[in-house]
Amino acid sequence: MSKSLIGSCVFAQSGGPTAVINASAYGAIRAALDASEITNVYGAAHGIVGIMGDVLYDMGQEDVEELKLLLNTPSSELGSCRYKIKDPDVDETDYIKILNIFKKYNIRYFFYNGGNDSMDTCEKVSRYLDRLGYECRVIGIPKTIDNDLVGTDHCPGYGSAAKYIATSIAEISKDTHVYDVGMITVVEIMGRHAGWLTGASALAHFSSAAPDLIFMPEAVFDMDRFLGDVERVYKRKNKCFIAVSEGIHYADGRFVSETSASSTDAFGHAQLGGLAARLAHIVKHHTGAKVRGIELSLLQRCAAHMASQTDIDEAVMAGRVAVHAALSGESGKMVAFKRGDRDGKYFCNTVLVPLTAVANAEKKVPLEWINADCDGVTKEFLDYALPLIQGENRRVLTNGLPKFAHLKKIRAVE
Amino acid sequence: MSKSLIGSCVFAQSGGPTAVINASAYGAIRAALDASEITNVYGAAHGIVGIMGDVLYDMGQEDVEELKLLLNTPSSELGSCRYKIKDPDVDETDYIKILNIFKKYNIRYFFYNGGNDSMDTCEKVSRYLDRLGYECRVIGIPKTIDNDLVGTDHCPGYGSAAKYIATSIAEISKDTHVYDVGMITVVEIMGRHAGWLTGASALAHFSSAAPDLIFMPEAVFDMDRFLGDVERVYKRKNKCFIAVSEGIHYADGRFVSETSASSTDAFGHAQLGGLAARLAHIVKHHTGAKVRGIELSLLQRCAAHMASQTDIDEAVMAGRVAVHAALSGESGKMVAFKRGDRDGKYFCNTVLVPLTAVANAEKKVPLEWINADCDGVTKEFLDYALPLIQGENRRVLTNGLPKFAHLKKIRAVE
Repeated sequence: MSKSLIGSCVFAQSGGPTAVINASAYGAIRAALDASEITNVYGAAHGIVGIMGDVLYDMGQEDVEELKLLLNTPSSELGSCRYKIKDPDVDETDYIKILNIFKKYNIRYFFYNGGNDSMDTCEKVSRYLDRLGYECRVIGIPKTIDNDLVGTDHCPGYGSAAKYIATSIAEISKDTHVYDVGMITVVEIMGRHAGWLTGASALAHFSSAAPDLIFMPEAVFDMDRFLGDVERVYKRKNKCFIAVSEGIHYADGRFVSETSASSTDAFGHAQLGGLAARLAHIVKHHTGAKVRGIELSLLQRCAAHMASQTDIDEAVMAGRVAVHAALSGESGKMVAFKRGDRDGKYFCNTVLVPLTAVANAEKKVPLEWINADCDGVTKEFLDYALPLIQGENRRVLTNGLPKFAHLKKIRAVE
Repeated sequence: MSKSLIGSCVFAQSGGPTAVINASAYGAIRAALDASEITNVYGAAHGIVGIMGDVLYDMGQEDVEELKLLLNTPSSELGSCRYKIKDPDVDETDYIKILNIFKKYNIRYFFYNGGNDSMDTCEKVSRYLDRLGYECRVIGIPKTIDNDLVGTDHCPGYGSAAKYIATSIAEISKDTHVYDVGMITVVEIMGRHAGWLTGASALAHFSSAAPDLIFMPEAVFDMDRFLGDVERVYKRKNKCFIAVSEGIHYADGRFVSETSASSTDAFGHAQLGGLAARLAHIVKHHTGAKVRGIELSLLQRCAAHMASQTDIDEAVMAGRVAVHAALSGESGKMVAFKRGDRDGKYFCNTVLVPLTAVANAEKKVPLEWINADCDGVTKEFLDYALPLIQGENRRVLTNGLPKFAHLKKIRAVE
């Protein structure tokens, strides 16, 4: 056990929101408020930007019950940022601001909740403070619906997005079978570089017949083969349900969503339609069938009503473990998940991994989890993803609508 | 009490699906199976088309528990159609087919579940059979997310769609407040001619700050005034959340979604983007702000996971009451809802209205329920809609995903 370090802590959220990032906030803030070594618990507005700008809120003044509502409040309640911090060896400006704020509030614990860019920020701040000999324990808390962080079995936020996607696709698939006419459906799913979310569409098979075809960024997209696949399924079933990642790309790396000059997809202005609309147009042109393009949109990352309780519980755990790790002397680490087996059932434990191993790296779906035709996932993928979407959340309602946390956000005074 | 009529019944679904149309199917089928006067209970495939084509399923052979799953299975489980039947005075062909099938199976009860087009079909069939002296009791069961049927306080399907829309908007609104930058969001909602669904977006105010502006088809859309409204809100709040109906139109009747030749919205090919994308593009061009266009898409009518239990219960009641009405001698009527008050609380009762009064008519949002600026709804609208979204549904799950009904669909033999 390391010597006890007395001081304040700051918790901040960064990067794109998820349905459960506030559950991690709750886990961390609650644990920090309960820790005798931590004198004041601050939440920063808009991530590292709020720290540099001295916009900290005193979490100790929040109502206990209101804080609990964070468990089912989507998006980043403290506000987020996409600020790219410079390398401290190149430009110290930001770090000097951060250090001044840390000194002003006697901040000795820094918890940063985000994806791989955020872990990079976290790592740089940790390294800088170390070098200057300012004692502060820095712990990263993972989050991203994209599930692309290395060093962790999965990321908080992924399970809920996966549950939303699989449920929505099962429901949409029922709808597309209503009329006695041919119908092709193209659903666009988030994930620029990794196919974890698009692959999760295959979980809908536990509930429905869809999807028939799944295209992820890990495999090169070939328009002719795609159209051939679609035609083959459509001829056989008079229906075809396709899930595509927004990040599908050709062999030369060009995103299908961005190309407009090829002979098959030169159909207008890119800014007016997303990939789903574009592919729907191409498929319609090619098959003559009735085609629908659907973009699942922002709800993939903010549909808290469909958050998996497993994901919420694990998100809380990640926040809490970060605080406990720091209290026990750890620093420069990220909380990671390790999957285990307890009586033959999925079980999730935590480990700590060095921030340096996580920052800026990207974990993609293993190629062996994608089928030979590159239009679906294997059983390994399903076995991996299924436990993460289990458990119906216990959200709080008012008037039949979600009751979200509304924090007072009282500005901190040193 | 009319004399008892012994014979078979056929139940059929028509028009666009909803999250609860199968709950009405359950109500009707269950009541028919329990009625001693009804010898066989048939479900027609794809509405009136399945009747004409002699594709009837024997509901008596379905598993009782599987039938119960219809309560939470979205979309039309028996299949739907959008077949426009001719006037019997002009062309009897379809009616002769229907009569032959009715005679073949000794069908004496016909239940048709649909919107205003379907009530027109129902009315014509009823009139034709009457004229020929073929004794058959015909009852319409209302359904439509659009909520545009006359003669009824509201329609089964509307409450669930409204709950999905309000919940989704509350969640998306949290997401749009994440970054410390200006943001304008345009959400497109179903409803070509009536603004009931778009107006329901205002229910999100019980949970969140959004939407700021609501545009419905009942009010003429003026692009310049719209852009002025958006700019005003955006300047004040640095955010603006807009809900628009797909059916908004200019003074000359042209849909905004279809126009492409005006100076303000000549931005490309209509087929590549919906209204949300188009308006987002125009707003971005006008304000220079970051703008997001989101189409809530098909999930508005098939998100059974968000169905209101009130809606489910009322949908079941509509189906059950249709059967009981027919058994008691009624015919040529539609089951309608009448809103009451029981101990100061919302209460829904049923009445019967003549099909002739419902067929082909369309109920729009009363203009006095739209605010003076035509960019929002009044308290009367909220008071009307709020009771309909109450109650969390009790859906059945398997593997964390919805368990939908899979009927055996055993073909009927006479």
